[in-house]
Amino acid sequence: MVHIAILGLGVVGSGTADLITQNKDLIKERFGEEVNIKYILDIKDKPESPYSDKIIHDYNVILEDPEVTVVAEVMGGSHPAFEFSMQALSKGKNVVTSNKEVVSNFGDQLLKAASDNNVSYLFEASVGGGIPVLRPLSTDLSANNIKEIVGILNGTTNYILTKMKKEGESFENALAEAQKNGYAEANPSADIDGIDTCRKISILTAIAYGKLINPQSIHTEGIAGIRREDVEAIERTGACIKLLGKSVMTENKEVYVMTAPFVIGNENPLASVDDVFNAVTVKGDFVGDVTFYGRGAGAYPTASAVCGDIMNIISGATANLNIKPWQASDEMFMSDFSYFACKRYLSFADTDKNAAQVIFGDVEMIQEGSEISFITGSITENELSDKVMRLCSSGARLCAHIRVL
Amino acid sequence: MVHIAILGLGVVGSGTADLITQNKDLIKERFGEEVNIKYILDIKDKPESPYSDKIIHDYNVILEDPEVTVVAEVMGGSHPAFEFSMQALSKGKNVVTSNKEVVSNFGDQLLKAASDNNVSYLFEASVGGGIPVLRPLSTDLSANNIKEIVGILNGTTNYILTKMKKEGESFENALAEAQKNGYAEANPSADIDGIDTCRKISILTAIAYGKLINPQSIHTEGIAGIRREDVEAIERTGACIKLLGKSVMTENKEVYVMTAPFVIGNENPLASVDDVFNAVTVKGDFVGDVTFYGRGAGAYPTASAVCGDIMNIISGATANLNIKPWQASDEMFMSDFSYFACKRYLSFADTDKNAAQVIFGDVEMIQEGSEISFITGSITENELSDKVMRLCSSGARLCAHIRVL
Repeated sequence: MVHIAILGLGVVGSGTADLITQNKDLIKERFGEEVNIKYILDIKDKPESPYSDKIIHDYNVILEDPEVTVVAEVMGGSHPAFEFSMQALSKGKNVVTSNKEVVSNFGDQLLKAASDNNVSYLFEASVGGGIPVLRPLSTDLSANNIKEIVGILNGTTNYILTKMKKEGESFENALAEAQKNGYAEANPSADIDGIDTCRKISILTAIAYGKLINPQSIHTEGIAGIRREDVEAIERTGACIKLLGKSVMTENKEVYVMTAPFVIGNENPLASVDDVFNAVTVKGDFVGDVTFYGRGAGAYPTASAVCGDIMNIISGATANLNIKPWQASDEMFMSDFSYFACKRYLSFADTDKNAAQVIFGDVEMIQEGSEISFITGSITENELSDKVMRLCSSGARLCAHIRVL
Repeated sequence: MVHIAILGLGVVGSGTADLITQNKDLIKERFGEEVNIKYILDIKDKPESPYSDKIIHDYNVILEDPEVTVVAEVMGGSHPAFEFSMQALSKGKNVVTSNKEVVSNFGDQLLKAASDNNVSYLFEASVGGGIPVLRPLSTDLSANNIKEIVGILNGTTNYILTKMKKEGESFENALAEAQKNGYAEANPSADIDGIDTCRKISILTAIAYGKLINPQSIHTEGIAGIRREDVEAIERTGACIKLLGKSVMTENKEVYVMTAPFVIGNENPLASVDDVFNAVTVKGDFVGDVTFYGRGAGAYPTASAVCGDIMNIISGATANLNIKPWQASDEMFMSDFSYFACKRYLSFADTDKNAAQVIFGDVEMIQEGSEISFITGSITENELSDKVMRLCSSGARLCAHIRVL
């Protein structure tokens, strides 16, 4: 019998308890062990929950119970999740989590504490919900030099962008609908401003390269500035807009890491990832492109990943052997984003094609009229700023800038 | 220093040697161990190979060298691959392989031998080439009841079907082109008759349920009977034809396992898997649908998976803990295929819509003319045989039958 404690009886906590309860026999048959939820830590009593008899309010009860060998931290937020996890690890308990905020901010310290105490700290559920991606990246693909990671990592923003594309809605209306359907929170900032995606690309990058980049150092843009007219103009070119987390290894062994909306061609497997689905494409030097696709959020898919980590611990597969402690945030490892080069979709008012071509050279015009929209050749962020400034100095007004994958 | 031996310097063997050579530093940095290819077993001398100095012809040299702890069996075929693998395992050597034939025929014995000798037998490369799928299924998704596995598992047939769809080619021409481009062998039977797919769905099923079904017991159809006119008729309905390996768990805890061409709607993620790419969708009770997509064959992608397994062994992650020895082929575990029910695409000559509807009821007509084509409601294999026989007894001739996913 393996005794576990769940920290937080929210959406993921309840899903995790449901899985362990409903699939008890399967787990026992497959791993030869019964899993018992001994405690659930929550600040509320939640008498309506089927698990209310497990609820306690004092974390020390869990810490001091030597029977508890696995703690599932599914409370979210940095604090006290970080402190609770460190305490559990220091007591020799394995910790699994779905908490991308704590992993992206403190993963280096948490992995070191796990290593020091010869236990595991696992967080498959923190990226891509139920989609297996961290363990495949750290095991199956571990003999590859990872060249690039690109992912649709946030279901809320993908739902909004899908609504804008398929139903011609404005950002505001699509957001309101997402909120109505429970896909976006009342305060949607973490999603729509790209913060959630930024945390996840930070974790993916750390898994690939063993170095944790502070999410604050990652160039991060959200989708609030995406206009219906840009969605439509881009759709006419056989492409669509997706909010991506992206990490690219340069020849100097530095990485560009970013979160931003991108124009992607419809032939890219990521283009057909709609609604709240997530997908991650990993490019390795030997394997080529591999894409992982599925439900990136939700109680049950996330519980699947949390419990996959618990099963890995139960099986004795000493899971953290493939995730060595990360080096702490290393600015030198990051390429200067000013030099990141790509094609760009631009839209300007109060100017014309000729003026644009004088400055941007031979561009692919998408539309002319009260606004002109076009795709540039590959230019760096620095070059872009310079060229935009020059065009605007003649009276033009920049209405949209979206990078092209 | 970890010393390995490669059995067979063919396409996958050369790719594996290339990976270990080119990514030597990465491997050492990541796993703290250098990997040395001590021997390559091949019947030929291959003086043109950069690895010719490693080639030996006597397998006993490898078996008797205690320094060799990992054997990569990439020779293909059942014999002597099976015997060589058993011998290596019994000598306490770990074995990794890309050989789906040997795993699908003898995986139960090989896993038992690995377990008995406290070593690993790993075969991620045997299904989906470079795509991580077996390990994610046995680790990340291990807390799920697996409801269904559906995959495009053979690149050659997918290339042919893609050519038929996109360029309107006949099966014969598309096959000839695949052979010209090196995607199909001179004797293409293992691919086009579905044998390769059958082996892979047998392995996926064994990973999901712990029971190895003899490939000979699996209902297997290839693509040689697919006609250009069926491809076109189905395309007009917003769908396409893919050769699938499919495994479905029934409510009685039995599985239907099959290999056959299927009609799949274009909204299914598998529909956009074209050319030589592979993809596998796994449906779990908690995770929902998860799809893995990438290059299902080729020297380098397959080498990526072979080496991922080697890295897993080097890391000490006692990898086989998640793949317990399989029970041997158990006919009782398989549902009687006669009762498998699905919608079907049918095409008949020498009859008409009315005659068809008398027997098949309310069908979705796709075309009428010298042939009639339609989609039936969900009927079993038994019911299909009966109804086809009845229609044909009135002079109709069955021209095509393709199941609908």
